[in-house]
Amino acid sequence: MTDFSIAEYKTRVKKTKEKMNSAGIDVLLVTDPANINYLSGYNAWSYYTHQLLIVSLNEEEPIWVGRGIDETGAHHTTWLRAENIISYSDDYVQSETKHAMEFMCEVIKSRKMDRKSIGMEYDTYFFTAQNYIILTQTLPNATFKDAMNLINWIRVIKSEKELQYMRRAGLLVSKAMKKATDRIEAGVRECDVVADIYHAQISGTEKFGGDYPCFPPLLPSGEKTNACHLTWTDEKYKQGDPVILELSGTYKRYNVPLARTLVIGEPTKEMETLANVAIEGINEALLAVKPGVTSEEVEMVWRNSIKKHGFEKESRIGYSIGVNYPPDWGEKTISLRPGDKTILEPDMTLHMIPGIWMDNYGVEITESFIVTETGIELLADVERKLFIK
Amino acid sequence: MTDFSIAEYKTRVKKTKEKMNSAGIDVLLVTDPANINYLSGYNAWSYYTHQLLIVSLNEEEPIWVGRGIDETGAHHTTWLRAENIISYSDDYVQSETKHAMEFMCEVIKSRKMDRKSIGMEYDTYFFTAQNYIILTQTLPNATFKDAMNLINWIRVIKSEKELQYMRRAGLLVSKAMKKATDRIEAGVRECDVVADIYHAQISGTEKFGGDYPCFPPLLPSGEKTNACHLTWTDEKYKQGDPVILELSGTYKRYNVPLARTLVIGEPTKEMETLANVAIEGINEALLAVKPGVTSEEVEMVWRNSIKKHGFEKESRIGYSIGVNYPPDWGEKTISLRPGDKTILEPDMTLHMIPGIWMDNYGVEITESFIVTETGIELLADVERKLFIK
Repeated sequence: MTDFSIAEYKTRVKKTKEKMNSAGIDVLLVTDPANINYLSGYNAWSYYTHQLLIVSLNEEEPIWVGRGIDETGAHHTTWLRAENIISYSDDYVQSETKHAMEFMCEVIKSRKMDRKSIGMEYDTYFFTAQNYIILTQTLPNATFKDAMNLINWIRVIKSEKELQYMRRAGLLVSKAMKKATDRIEAGVRECDVVADIYHAQISGTEKFGGDYPCFPPLLPSGEKTNACHLTWTDEKYKQGDPVILELSGTYKRYNVPLARTLVIGEPTKEMETLANVAIEGINEALLAVKPGVTSEEVEMVWRNSIKKHGFEKESRIGYSIGVNYPPDWGEKTISLRPGDKTILEPDMTLHMIPGIWMDNYGVEITESFIVTETGIELLADVERKLFIK
Repeated sequence: MTDFSIAEYKTRVKKTKEKMNSAGIDVLLVTDPANINYLSGYNAWSYYTHQLLIVSLNEEEPIWVGRGIDETGAHHTTWLRAENIISYSDDYVQSETKHAMEFMCEVIKSRKMDRKSIGMEYDTYFFTAQNYIILTQTLPNATFKDAMNLINWIRVIKSEKELQYMRRAGLLVSKAMKKATDRIEAGVRECDVVADIYHAQISGTEKFGGDYPCFPPLLPSGEKTNACHLTWTDEKYKQGDPVILELSGTYKRYNVPLARTLVIGEPTKEMETLANVAIEGINEALLAVKPGVTSEEVEMVWRNSIKKHGFEKESRIGYSIGVNYPPDWGEKTISLRPGDKTILEPDMTLHMIPGIWMDNYGVEITESFIVTETGIELLADVERKLFIK
C-alpha cells in the first residue's frame, strides 16, 4: 500500500526526468532516503545499510536496489514492478571485504547504463566517500555529474495530498506541544515529560496516529537553553528554569516542527524582553511571507525588527520542510537567510525558526506554515507567547 | 557534564592514537557521530550538519569542529578545552555555494596538519562524497588512508561503566517489551501500542530515564511479518495476526535491542513450528558463546541447529552493539556470519538476532548479551518464547 496514488508518483518521476534531461543526466542515482521515498514510496528503517534508487531516462519506472531482507519491504511499500526490485545478498552488509556499491555497479552494467551520464547526490548522507570511489572506479566509461538537490527542489512545492498530510502533522505537533507545556513543572523529571511528548506524537488523534519524528524532542533547560540541539536528562526541573521545546508532528514521514519557550516561575526581565523581541520579530516576518517575495527579503524583515531592539542573530531563520527521515526534517533547499534569492511560491512549506541564544539563556518561538496565494496558512495551533508555569 | 570520567575519555584517545600510529596515520578525521561521542563526549542532535573531530598524534586532545550554534552544546557535553572547540558560521549550512569541509580544511592547515598522513572513515554515513572531494582537492600535500572502523574496533570491548549503562538499557528494553506484549490485542491500534512503547523506553524506572532509541520500534504485523524493517500504521490489530516486535532500550546513547514474536489468538501450525526451531537454534547458539570462540563458529551452531529441521537462513545472525545514534545501533564490526573470524572476548556486547522470514510470515526471537569469562550475561529479561495473546 503506497501513501500516494501511483499517478502522483509517476508525476514526480516525470518531473525528475525533465530536470535530468535539462541537466544532461541520463541516469540518476538516488541515495537520500527521503528522495527514494518520494519517487518510489519505499518506507522502511533500512537506510543504515546501502540502498539505491536508479532513475533512467530509458526506463519507465525507477529501479530499487537494496538488501535481501528488505526486498519484501519494497514489495509492500512501493509501486514498482517486481523486476525493478533487486537485492544483494547479506554478506555485503557492513563487511570489510565486500561493498554493496560493487553489486549496484553490476546492476548498472547489466541494464546498460555504464556508458551514460550519471548524476549523483554528492553531499547526501549515506552517499559515502566509499560509494563514490567504488562507483567512479568501477564505471570508467561513465561521466559523472552533481545532481545534489535535483529531487529536493521538486519537493519544495507540495501537492494537495502532501498538504493534507502536513496539516495532520500540524495537529500532532500542536497536541504534543500542549501536552509538554501542561506537564512541565518543578519537581517533574525531564524524561517523564518527554515520554508524554512521544506518546502524544505517536498515539495522535482518534482519527489517525503519528509516525516517528525526524528529531527526538529537543528540550534543553536552565543554562543549557543557550544550546539549541541538546535533548534531555532524567533530572528534575527546578523552579526558575527556562525550557526550550523543539518538537515535531510527523504523519506518513511528513514533518511539522514547532518550538516554544517556557519558564517555570517568574521569568527574568532579560528573558521577558528577549521573548517579546522574538515574538515581534516573527510576527513581522510571517506577515512578509507571500508569493513573489524572496527568502532573503523575509529574513531581512526579522533582522530589521530585532535590530531596533539592539539584537543581532547570525543563523538562518528558517528552511523548507516536508517528507524526511532522521536525522533531518529540513529539505536542504530554501533557507531564510541573506543570499537566498528563492522566490516564494504557493504550496511551499517552511519552518520559520528565529531562535536567539544569549550567553546563558535563549528563546525559540517558531511557526511552520504553507505559503498560500496571499500569505500563509499556519500548520500548528499553539499560542505564540512565552509560556509561564 | 560528560557521561564518563575524563580519565576514561583519555584512555580511549590513547588507544586510538596507538592504532593510528600502527597504521601510519598522523591525523584522524572522525565523522561518525558515535565515534565523536566516544572520544569527546559530544552529544547533541546536530549531525544533520557537517561536524568533525580531529585526532592528531601531535595534539594532546581532539579538536571539535562544528556549526556555530552547536558550539555551546560542545562546551556543555565534552571534556575538551575551549581552544579545541571551533565552529563555522551559519552560511556554511546546507548551502549550494559554500561547504563546511572548506572551513574544516582551513582548520587543518592552521594547525599544520595538511602535509600529514590523514585517516578518514571512508564509508561512514555523513562522510559524504562531497566531503571527500573537497578534502582531497584542498589538501594536495596530504596523503590519505582508510581508517574506516579504526575506532569502532576499539569500541567492541566495553569498560565497566559502559557495561553499567548497557545493563540499564537492558532494563529499559525489558520494560518496553513487557508493555508491548501486554498491550497488543485485536481491536487496538498499532500506533497506540507504539505510543506506550516509547513511553516505557523514555520514562524508564524510578531511578533513571531512557534516551531516544536508535531505531524506532519495528513491529510489522500480519503478512508484513515477512519484512523485518517496517514500522507501524494506525490500523487496528486483527484476531490471528502475528506481530514481530524489535525494540531497544537506550541509556546515555548505549543501546540494547531485543525482538520477540507474538500471535493474537491461535498460532498456525507452521508458525508454532518455526518459533520452536528458532528458539532451539538461539538456545544452542547462545550456549556456544564464550571467549576464544569465533563469530562464524557461533553462527555455525545456529545454522546446524535449524538445518536439522529443514530450514536455512542467509542473513547474519548478530552484530556488536554499544553507543550509537540513529539510524544504526550496531557497531559495524563483528557480524555473526560465515567468514567472520573475530575471536570473542570478555566484555564484548552483541545482539544475536536469528530471524527467519518465510514467504508470508516470520519469526524473530533475539537476545542481547555481554560475553563473560565463561559464557554470557543476558542484558534483557524477557521470556524466550512465542507470545500468545
